[in-house]
Amino acid sequence: MATTAKSKPSGASGMTYAAAGIDLERYDGFIDTLGGMLKRTHGPRVISNPGGFAGLFRLDYNEKLFARNYRDPVLVACSDGVGTKIKVAQELGILHTIGIDLVAMNVNDCIVEGAEPLFFLDCLSVPQVDQRQCAAIMSGVVEGCRLAGCALLGGETAEMGDLFRPGDFDLTGFCVGVVDLHRAMNRRSPEPGDIVLGLASSGIHSNGFTLARKVIADAGLQLGERYGELTDPETGQTPALGEAILTPTRIYAESIVKLGRAYRVKKVVTAMAHITGGGLAGNLERVLGDKVDAHIRTSSWPTPGVLRLLQERGGVEEAEMRRVFNMGIGYCVVVRPTFAEAVKEKLERMGERVYTIGKITKGKGRVVEK
Amino acid sequence: MATTAKSKPSGASGMTYAAAGIDLERYDGFIDTLGGMLKRTHGPRVISNPGGFAGLFRLDYNEKLFARNYRDPVLVACSDGVGTKIKVAQELGILHTIGIDLVAMNVNDCIVEGAEPLFFLDCLSVPQVDQRQCAAIMSGVVEGCRLAGCALLGGETAEMGDLFRPGDFDLTGFCVGVVDLHRAMNRRSPEPGDIVLGLASSGIHSNGFTLARKVIADAGLQLGERYGELTDPETGQTPALGEAILTPTRIYAESIVKLGRAYRVKKVVTAMAHITGGGLAGNLERVLGDKVDAHIRTSSWPTPGVLRLLQERGGVEEAEMRRVFNMGIGYCVVVRPTFAEAVKEKLERMGERVYTIGKITKGKGRVVEK
Repeated sequence: MATTAKSKPSGASGMTYAAAGIDLERYDGFIDTLGGMLKRTHGPRVISNPGGFAGLFRLDYNEKLFARNYRDPVLVACSDGVGTKIKVAQELGILHTIGIDLVAMNVNDCIVEGAEPLFFLDCLSVPQVDQRQCAAIMSGVVEGCRLAGCALLGGETAEMGDLFRPGDFDLTGFCVGVVDLHRAMNRRSPEPGDIVLGLASSGIHSNGFTLARKVIADAGLQLGERYGELTDPETGQTPALGEAILTPTRIYAESIVKLGRAYRVKKVVTAMAHITGGGLAGNLERVLGDKVDAHIRTSSWPTPGVLRLLQERGGVEEAEMRRVFNMGIGYCVVVRPTFAEAVKEKLERMGERVYTIGKITKGKGRVVEK
Repeated sequence: MATTAKSKPSGASGMTYAAAGIDLERYDGFIDTLGGMLKRTHGPRVISNPGGFAGLFRLDYNEKLFARNYRDPVLVACSDGVGTKIKVAQELGILHTIGIDLVAMNVNDCIVEGAEPLFFLDCLSVPQVDQRQCAAIMSGVVEGCRLAGCALLGGETAEMGDLFRPGDFDLTGFCVGVVDLHRAMNRRSPEPGDIVLGLASSGIHSNGFTLARKVIADAGLQLGERYGELTDPETGQTPALGEAILTPTRIYAESIVKLGRAYRVKKVVTAMAHITGGGLAGNLERVLGDKVDAHIRTSSWPTPGVLRLLQERGGVEEAEMRRVFNMGIGYCVVVRPTFAEAVKEKLERMGERVYTIGKITKGKGRVVEK
């Protein structure tokens, strides 16, 4: 694990690693600063492992204050990156939020399965370690882990000068959570009559940036410009386009984990979906099974200004927008009808903006948007 | 999780995702082929999760035939990539082994902690999905997982045309294992008198490729050439340089996990190290603590021909070689002296080439190479 890698200074006079472009001292200098950042995300379940080759996380934890045990634990794992949102972050020199996006893309997938996120690891590939750039990126990863309540257990920073142009980088990550077998979401199915609640997204999140960037380039939009479409109807404030599209992906982990704990016994939530590439229909469809349809009323929530701007200025058809972007709903919770209002209120009290966006009927596994 | 992502055909006439370079049908076509590949690595502990957002793996498994339970399970996780070995694979068009390297780099770290690897996830970033290229890369990941006895639980394939040049790609991965708390290696320390066993590497493995490639370029070495230094002393065969440096990283998981099971009660192994960047000294040092030294006799094992070739033709000093490359030992097992011969024989019976390369004395946490 690179976050704990050590090497010694070299006094070599022949061909050296440094001459080939890999400066281990500079690299180690950065890695040394990471240790403290990781620790800020560590609870009592992370086992100290100086010099270790991997991170250690206690699953069952029997100490009085923090007891946490599982009857039949299922580990839930996923990996994801942030796509070409990276290019916008880089262009604007705003690197401290892209790590939040990275954690969000992963933990939001993990919680869909009913899991409590436990820990996260990242892989950062750069041409050469630039201490300021890498520290800014990693500060976002740390912040994301804190927002998601999971430990940053380790990671890898790789120097690959021949693969990346100066300033470019790739950022991927991986999340592990746990759910007790009898509470895993894959054992449940939406039933006719269920209500679909939509949790507001914070903007574009981290999908569709290749299209967003093409629209921006073709329509001659400026990242520094404050377009009227971007004005927040509540605050009246208008961010610059760059700021609006870089808004970090909302992390739903805290709310969804709390919601799960509130209904330990009752089967209230019958399905969930994280809205990423493929849009609301493409992702909600994945959890419907083949015996019900979901009817979604698209007028039941507002489209974020930044998405309306891209659609109008880019001449992107409505169907294509809905297939590529989240259009304002970042996460869906399907609930039994008698609990719909209570769940909506609970989520709102936890800080989510929640819309009742549709319902489940008998069907064939389709999402019908109207 | 992209391996289960779905999307629908678009009939859009305005600006589209496809026009921006992302062809979801081509992408989905590749993703659909992945499902079957993943399944080949799945045992009974992997829970089927069609349409799922994350992979599901049962930790405790009480079914009669496959019972597997943990008293106080510690999850062990690490992430790593294969560095610029990618560039050589790409140059030679040999893409079906780089995935083995990826799994090796991760599981070999995981087993150092005493863990049994459970599952693996990958992240593949490409400019655009080229079905043949991606399938070849993923076939190696699948093969690596089978060699390591772990499930390929999921992964992500991302199209990032603006970040990568045609043919280029980045490949990272994550491994999760489990060890019972009382058997975790971080609870042990090498003691004076212990013997250091070295397990032979299969060649360069996946570190130091930036230096190796610089040497090859500067010294005018040809990847297609069969240099005398590359002749295998046992078989008498001489591979081409490209073939020699691409030899996949040896996966020590099966041997080391079996060794651990053979000594469930007795404390026989006191430390282990996976030899990666930093070389034998840099990595062994990480597990010594500060009360002992390791004395390594470097003449006690043969240096692989490919490393001798790079050193001689590249004019790389001995110290620099030892700091960057594994020099022939890919993994170290430190054992109590009375068990050294028995452990060596056990590992040899499992197919490892094992050398007695040194011993532990009172000291200050240094590795002394002579």
